Amino acid sequence: MNNTKEIWINFVHNLQDAICDALEQCDGKASFIEDKWERPEGGGGKTRVIANGNVFEKGGVNTSIVFGDVTPLMRQQLKIDGHKWFACGLSLVIHPINPFVPTVHCNYRMFELYNEQDEVMDRWFGGGTDLTPYYLIDEDAILFHQTYKNACDKSDASFFPAFKKHCDDYFVNTHRGNERRGIGGIFYDYQRATDDKPVDFWINLARDCGYAFMDAYVPIVEKRKHTAYNPEHKHWQEIRRGRYVEFNLVHDRGTIFGLKTNGRIESILMSLPPTVRFEYNYQPIAGSEEDKLLQACLAPKDWV
Amino acid sequence: MNNTKEIWINFVHNLQDAICDALEQCDGKASFIEDKWERPEGGGGKTRVIANGNVFEKGGVNTSIVFGDVTPLMRQQLKIDGHKWFACGLSLVIHPINPFVPTVHCNYRMFELYNEQDEVMDRWFGGGTDLTPYYLIDEDAILFHQTYKNACDKSDASFFPAFKKHCDDYFVNTHRGNERRGIGGIFYDYQRATDDKPVDFWINLARDCGYAFMDAYVPIVEKRKHTAYNPEHKHWQEIRRGRYVEFNLVHDRGTIFGLKTNGRIESILMSLPPTVRFEYNYQPIAGSEEDKLLQACLAPKDWV
Repeated sequence: MNNTKEIWINFVHNLQDAICDALEQCDGKASFIEDKWERPEGGGGKTRVIANGNVFEKGGVNTSIVFGDVTPLMRQQLKIDGHKWFACGLSLVIHPINPFVPTVHCNYRMFELYNEQDEVMDRWFGGGTDLTPYYLIDEDAILFHQTYKNACDKSDASFFPAFKKHCDDYFVNTHRGNERRGIGGIFYDYQRATDDKPVDFWINLARDCGYAFMDAYVPIVEKRKHTAYNPEHKHWQEIRRGRYVEFNLVHDRGTIFGLKTNGRIESILMSLPPTVRFEYNYQPIAGSEEDKLLQACLAPKDWV
Repeated sequence: MNNTKEIWINFVHNLQDAICDALEQCDGKASFIEDKWERPEGGGGKTRVIANGNVFEKGGVNTSIVFGDVTPLMRQQLKIDGHKWFACGLSLVIHPINPFVPTVHCNYRMFELYNEQDEVMDRWFGGGTDLTPYYLIDEDAILFHQTYKNACDKSDASFFPAFKKHCDDYFVNTHRGNERRGIGGIFYDYQRATDDKPVDFWINLARDCGYAFMDAYVPIVEKRKHTAYNPEHKHWQEIRRGRYVEFNLVHDRGTIFGLKTNGRIESILMSLPPTVRFEYNYQPIAGSEEDKLLQACLAPKDWV
């Protein structure tokens, strides 16, 4: 195993442990259950799922290390070349019970391609974290974005604005015009080592952003988990969760690729919210708190 | 307007009225609300939605008459030729409250293509009706399939077995192996007039199958709408509704094409169930009534 691979795998597993610990402490009741799985074509993963807690209704913090031959489908759909490939990453989605606690998603991954001599011929990094609130609380949005700005700034001051825009442009339910699934965060992909930004640089970026989760999301949960809510708030949360389902099943590249290429279905679809509502032509009342959130999803804002 | 078009449009609108009347009578409380809409590129539709009734939790019986220029996207994705196109059809999805009343979907449509002289250069018919029970009641499955067999047999005795197979092969959540969303029915597409099967033949088939809804589905609703159920039954219904969402958003050609080509979103997505659950790796107990339904979705059966 090359050194980069080993460092990355350790990072991903340590981050999984740290995030699971932090979320279990937040929840105070439920624990993560681990399902180890193997992929017939090579590799496997550790799916960790939490459900029916005090705070978290459903969530997963998954890692996977998968590899194999480059297939014709991958050549065509991923537009990649090479003989064999390797991918390792962490992916999480957390759906809290309380509609005043946002849903969060993050993913950090490394991809390697090898030639016929098993030498690394290409390697890239991708990642990001994005927030999906049901009610917009400005101070939470600011805290979230500021924390990722700080994390990105350690590597390069140009990253945060670019990654924020990439995120705003990616998580869009294009079938609903400009409507995003949430208020964004950061997203980057296909980042390759260069002379002045070597492999370590990209691993450090992922580490800084990965661990920023503890400062960006956990404090919001702590602050909002006891906020009183009523069935109307829950109703709106379930309507918005419907938009989350629409994005993940219709547009999300990772989900669709996984579903069409024999990925582990239950690990991929753990991202779907636990209870969801689809109502015909549901529109929040103009000027309501629900509408305020919708408007923030229609027109992304610079929070920092 | 050519004569075929006029006959087809009348058929579709009359069928919409007949089905809405029958369902309102079944429900005894809720009425359909009609939304007329126009499509900027040409045509429009009548979306009729029922919600929160005695029997029906959410449902839509929609008709649309749409037309326009053949676009490059249509040439590529639909593999069609020609200058202008026209499509008219009825599409319905009904989600009952009671888990012992099945969900039903049907669609009957005609498509025409015109050359630069506005002459019809191609025309085809498609349609079908399929049943999605949450609990398998053999006599209901038999009634449903027998009714469509009788309807098809009026046109051609070879149709029912072929259309049943087409239906079983189409409504599959391929990302879950062989799992179908329900127990099938009939489905046919790209049927063109020939010397011995002229246009009238295909319109009669659609009429026979379209009106068979009243004999195939309504009696099942009447028989099961008062069946007692508990929260576990409802829970299972919502899990299976999740599979309905997965099929419609990941695989259904009509839905995906509509979402990617500026269709009327709320009319397309009215097919999604009102309340849905996604649970990690949910498996019914082997041999339970829930498992019996799942097995029927995994291995389609000849009911007649």
